[in-house]
Amino acid sequence: MTHHEPAAVTVLGLGSMGAALAGAFLAAGHPTTVWNRTPEKAAPLVAAGAQHARTVDAAVAASPLVVACLTGYDDTRRILEPATATLAGHTLVTLNSGTPADASELAEWAASNGVRFLDGAVKDVPEAVGGPGTLLYYAGDAEVFAEHAPTLRALGGDTVLLGGEPDLAKFYESAVGATLLPALVGFFAGAAAARTRGIAAADLVPYAVRWLQMIGEIVPVFAAEIDARDYSAGASSVNLFVAGADVDLEFAREAKVDDAWLRPLHDLVRKAAAAGHGEDSIAALTEVLRTA
Amino acid sequence: MTHHEPAAVTVLGLGSMGAALAGAFLAAGHPTTVWNRTPEKAAPLVAAGAQHARTVDAAVAASPLVVACLTGYDDTRRILEPATATLAGHTLVTLNSGTPADASELAEWAASNGVRFLDGAVKDVPEAVGGPGTLLYYAGDAEVFAEHAPTLRALGGDTVLLGGEPDLAKFYESAVGATLLPALVGFFAGAAAARTRGIAAADLVPYAVRWLQMIGEIVPVFAAEIDARDYSAGASSVNLFVAGADVDLEFAREAKVDDAWLRPLHDLVRKAAAAGHGEDSIAALTEVLRTA
Ligand SMILES: NC(=O)c1ccc[n+]([C@@H]2O[C@H](COP(=O)([O-])OP(=O)(O)OC[C@H]3O[C@@H](n4cnc5c(N)ncnc54)[C@H](OP(=O)(O)O)[C@@H]3O)[C@@H](O)[C@H]2O)c1
Ligand SMILES: NC(=O)c1ccc[n+]([C@@H]2O[C@H](COP(=O)([O-])OP(=O)(O)OC[C@H]3O[C@@H](n4cnc5c(N)ncnc54)[C@H](OP(=O)(O)O)[C@@H]3O)[C@@H](O)[C@H]2O)c1
Repeated sequence: MTHHEPAAVTVLGLGSMGAALAGAFLAAGHPTTVWNRTPEKAAPLVAAGAQHARTVDAAVAASPLVVACLTGYDDTRRILEPATATLAGHTLVTLNSGTPADASELAEWAASNGVRFLDGAVKDVPEAVGGPGTLLYYAGDAEVFAEHAPTLRALGGDTVLLGGEPDLAKFYESAVGATLLPALVGFFAGAAAARTRGIAAADLVPYAVRWLQMIGEIVPVFAAEIDARDYSAGASSVNLFVAGADVDLEFAREAKVDDAWLRPLHDLVRKAAAAGHGEDSIAALTEVLRTA
Repeated sequence: MTHHEPAAVTVLGLGSMGAALAGAFLAAGHPTTVWNRTPEKAAPLVAAGAQHARTVDAAVAASPLVVACLTGYDDTRRILEPATATLAGHTLVTLNSGTPADASELAEWAASNGVRFLDGAVKDVPEAVGGPGTLLYYAGDAEVFAEHAPTLRALGGDTVLLGGEPDLAKFYESAVGATLLPALVGFFAGAAAARTRGIAAADLVPYAVRWLQMIGEIVPVFAAEIDARDYSAGASSVNLFVAGADVDLEFAREAKVDDAWLRPLHDLVRKAAAAGHGEDSIAALTEVLRTA
């Protein structure tokens, strides 16, 4: 194996996440140029060895790889507009949140301006950036990814290309992330109920953690049912959840916890039963969740 | 340590779960008497060494410990009524689903008839019953539990008494289980979206499993915030979820997935923000989930 000098990289946006990205590049020995709208935020990174660019154009000119971590795609596009000519031929990697359509739009803008482009997502907190097990997934051209993967691996040991369509990272992020808010609301509702009778949320934790682990264990089984569109072997039937709905609501009433968030979930369960899925696996809900 | 002969036990109800319970008692060497409304279901257990009682009264008379696993508490109460006198002085353990109030009601009936009582919950599938890591938790008198724990441990290595109030097992079950349906609907919605563009649910699985694991890792942090009623140190703020709501809805629209189940969750997030929790941890939702 040949030894390569760590490649130069530029980070635009030094919020919580952008600062962590720049810090990880520096820690891995990459010559790192940083820019932020509020320039004061560059100080700790400059102290750690970064070059501070005063304009986006200068920042972009400094490195073949430009990683942007602003709040959203619109912000990124806005700051890049005046540096478009300089960015041509360089690679832009966006690591902010947004929708798949937002990512596609920026990809089109990049393509029409001769900018090589990857969109990605950091699937962890800023503190985890640079860790060996930290996951970042990307979407875009495989050659562009291959060229920069050695540099991007400085951000997390688990660096994956999901595929060539540039909106795939945002797509996965939304599709996979769809469990977060509902699962948390479920836990908070349980905790609110526990408080009603003087039980600490901490007392629920060992069982709640185990329960989430169990959900993680059955998810692959449900995925196989969904992909086969065959829900007939299901151990946890839709009807079981229909019966559970009454218990849920009675519990919420007894424990004086709001159940408005729960009712539309029950509606879905009943919709699946009405569609003939009563004896099928609960994964059959996938069929009634589509609007087209 | 003295060696004790395995104690005699009776199982009422031989559905999927009841049959598994009886099988585990038999496997552990307990003289086991079984009864089921539909007597045919006793055959495999008789073949495995069980005594088949033709009446509930005979079944109850056979053992000091009577484990009931019917569909619900009402069913259990109904079949036990004619055997009440025989049941007096014995211990009844119910392992079916229901609400805390249902469990309390049966506990009162037991107490008023001189029946010792524990209510419990099998936190696993029938196939796991008898396994060393299988969790069952119970509620009720500590002495009654201590007396029968050696027998009950045949059902699962992780056999826990939650406390003396007889509805605690059902309370924990509902409070902890509140994450199940919402988390699953989130996963199914992601899978429905994935199907829209030809991505298999199986492709989401590794990331979904990891995501659920991550949720399990942050739940203890949220529990500490909830118990301290101090949400000020939160890394994942309510405002972050307010911003995420638009992304969620746009994603659902793009992917043609029903978002009716999602909107009340967003309402809660906005309610928390409106109540002054915008900069607080998302765990502050616990405060707006209470109706009293
Ligand atoms: N923090 C996390 O845990 C985490 C995890 C995964 C993904 N993300 C995503 O990463 C992205 C950044 O998050 P963050 O936590 O770093 O946010 P943050 O701390 O709020 O930082 C936002 C950054 O964007 C810049 N910015 C916003 N609007 C701008 C504009 N119009 N022009 C120029 N600069 C602008 C800010 O510059 P100023 O300093 O001048 O305001 C700042 O550098 C977001 O999309 C977020 O969803 C964050
Ligand atoms: N299966 C699981 O994965 C699981 C996990 C945890 C907890 N549980 C709980 O365990 C309990 C039993 O579940 P299961 O899966 O064993 O259900 P099941 O297979 O449907 O069996 C139900 C049992 O209850 C009996 N039964 C119902 N109503 C009755 C009545 N009025 N009189 C007499 N017997 C009656 C049935 O008798 P017949 O045979 O005569 O119909 C059968 O023995 C439920 O509360 C369930 O929620 C189940």
